[in-house]
Amino acid sequence: MHEITKRILAGDVRGAARAITCIENDYPERSQILQEIFPYTGRAKLIGITGTPGAGKSSMVDCLIGFLRSQGLTVGVAAVDPTSPFTGGALLGDRVRMQNHALDTGVFIRSMGTRGSLGGLSRNTKDAVRVLDAYGCDVILIETVGVGQSELDVMNIADTTIVVLNPGGGDSVQAFKAGIMEIADLFVINKADLPGVDKLETEVEQMLDLVKHDAPWRPPISKTISTQNLGMADMWNEVLRHQAFLESSGEWQKKRAKQLQEEVLDIVNYQMFVRMQNFVQKGAFADELSGVAQRQLDPYSVAEKMVRTWFPQ
Amino acid sequence: MHEITKRILAGDVRGAARAITCIENDYPERSQILQEIFPYTGRAKLIGITGTPGAGKSSMVDCLIGFLRSQGLTVGVAAVDPTSPFTGGALLGDRVRMQNHALDTGVFIRSMGTRGSLGGLSRNTKDAVRVLDAYGCDVILIETVGVGQSELDVMNIADTTIVVLNPGGGDSVQAFKAGIMEIADLFVINKADLPGVDKLETEVEQMLDLVKHDAPWRPPISKTISTQNLGMADMWNEVLRHQAFLESSGEWQKKRAKQLQEEVLDIVNYQMFVRMQNFVQKGAFADELSGVAQRQLDPYSVAEKMVRTWFPQ
Repeated sequence: MHEITKRILAGDVRGAARAITCIENDYPERSQILQEIFPYTGRAKLIGITGTPGAGKSSMVDCLIGFLRSQGLTVGVAAVDPTSPFTGGALLGDRVRMQNHALDTGVFIRSMGTRGSLGGLSRNTKDAVRVLDAYGCDVILIETVGVGQSELDVMNIADTTIVVLNPGGGDSVQAFKAGIMEIADLFVINKADLPGVDKLETEVEQMLDLVKHDAPWRPPISKTISTQNLGMADMWNEVLRHQAFLESSGEWQKKRAKQLQEEVLDIVNYQMFVRMQNFVQKGAFADELSGVAQRQLDPYSVAEKMVRTWFPQ
Repeated sequence: MHEITKRILAGDVRGAARAITCIENDYPERSQILQEIFPYTGRAKLIGITGTPGAGKSSMVDCLIGFLRSQGLTVGVAAVDPTSPFTGGALLGDRVRMQNHALDTGVFIRSMGTRGSLGGLSRNTKDAVRVLDAYGCDVILIETVGVGQSELDVMNIADTTIVVLNPGGGDSVQAFKAGIMEIADLFVINKADLPGVDKLETEVEQMLDLVKHDAPWRPPISKTISTQNLGMADMWNEVLRHQAFLESSGEWQKKRAKQLQEEVLDIVNYQMFVRMQNFVQKGAFADELSGVAQRQLDPYSVAEKMVRTWFPQ
């Protein structure tokens, strides 16, 4: 067993942090650690939290962490920021939050930035969440900004997805409705002391009538005021209610099984890509690639030739 | 030569539409058509247009199309909406625009939705843009919503990227600054008749001072009022100035060559993934995958075994 695996399973916070660094940088020990911790995962509650910037997501998460700690639960946070591929993904408000909980060993907060491509963010986040799970976090919050494709991929990791709305957000529901309605298991109207709450609630209900009219789970709407630390217990109750629904539903087991199988193909695909890149860096198909760069050959024919060579089956 | 290729090169609009359908659905003729049209591509100006929802992007594009037509240029539009993987990507305002230009054979508008994953959107968009290029469009506008990772991948196709800002947008610059600043070649403040224009302009300039202080190209800021059809000629001049800058810069040629080579590997990777999925559907590694689904095996070990079998080199 790898030294880092031992440290994770022993609840060593620096071991967990080190493992996530290995994941983000794709160090050689990544695979071994993940193989070894896998049997110790699947225990934590995975909660996705998303919403447009400015919806007060960060302060709501901060509040929720405090509530969960008061219930004696340990909390991991993977703060994912796919909109900042260049900065490495420093989430707004993240540093503040880290300071609030810096002295609490029951809270582990980690920012996940975009490194690489090809689904790298959701793969890395999934693996980091497994580390937090094996490390012993009871609840893992997976927080993202917005609802682009990357965020949807990331939210797919969560069992329960919370969408945070802001009564002052105006067209936020309209703008993002397609994606949001499909992934939300629970809506939270944060800043519920501001005007516009009833209107927003009605809008969301109307959209749910349209989209979820025959779904077995209709997302409830919770209201919170994170600046006053209000509404957390109610919101958490809705989360637990959703998780109970999931467990009683056979579909959920099927979905999880299917996701694990898809993950295998995703890893294979990534590994093959890495190998392929190595070959190319060592000079494989150099003439053909140079021809493409000069537009003398088309990329499609050259790609076909490579596939026939490398994957002839 | 494929029948559809002939029709594209003959300027048959339905041939071009048919080719894009082949691309989006990954029909068998896709590859042949793309190989055949490749020598006829690389001529059109590729302009990316992005901005947060509500920035007036759609109406600005509508206006720009009118301006370009008045200059005797033919225009293709690939409207990409990665935020709507479930609806197939019907962009807000898209239908209206289509009606405005429905009778003009010099305008070709196509919505690109999210089908599949693994960079499918940017690959499909790139290929659709090639079709529009070979079909004879002088200018191709690639329009996206927001600036998530998918949008950045899509914008990478463009030579010049325009970021549309809204003086009433409040925190839009703040929220998206990291991504936006890196990809923008030109900022456009649309709705420039609204209050807040000077403030927004100052904010953008300040951010440019920070991010682009030593860059060879400093993105200019244009102002437009698309409801009054104002500012289009100035904006287009800035686009042309940027394209002249690109052509005089050797770096750009290198970047394009590198992108073409990366595209080859991207296609190879996708093709290998498709083959792999076919094998799995036919029962390859069924026991191992079933073990993963039941959490008796970990996905990482099974993936490694598959890679060793399929890609032993």
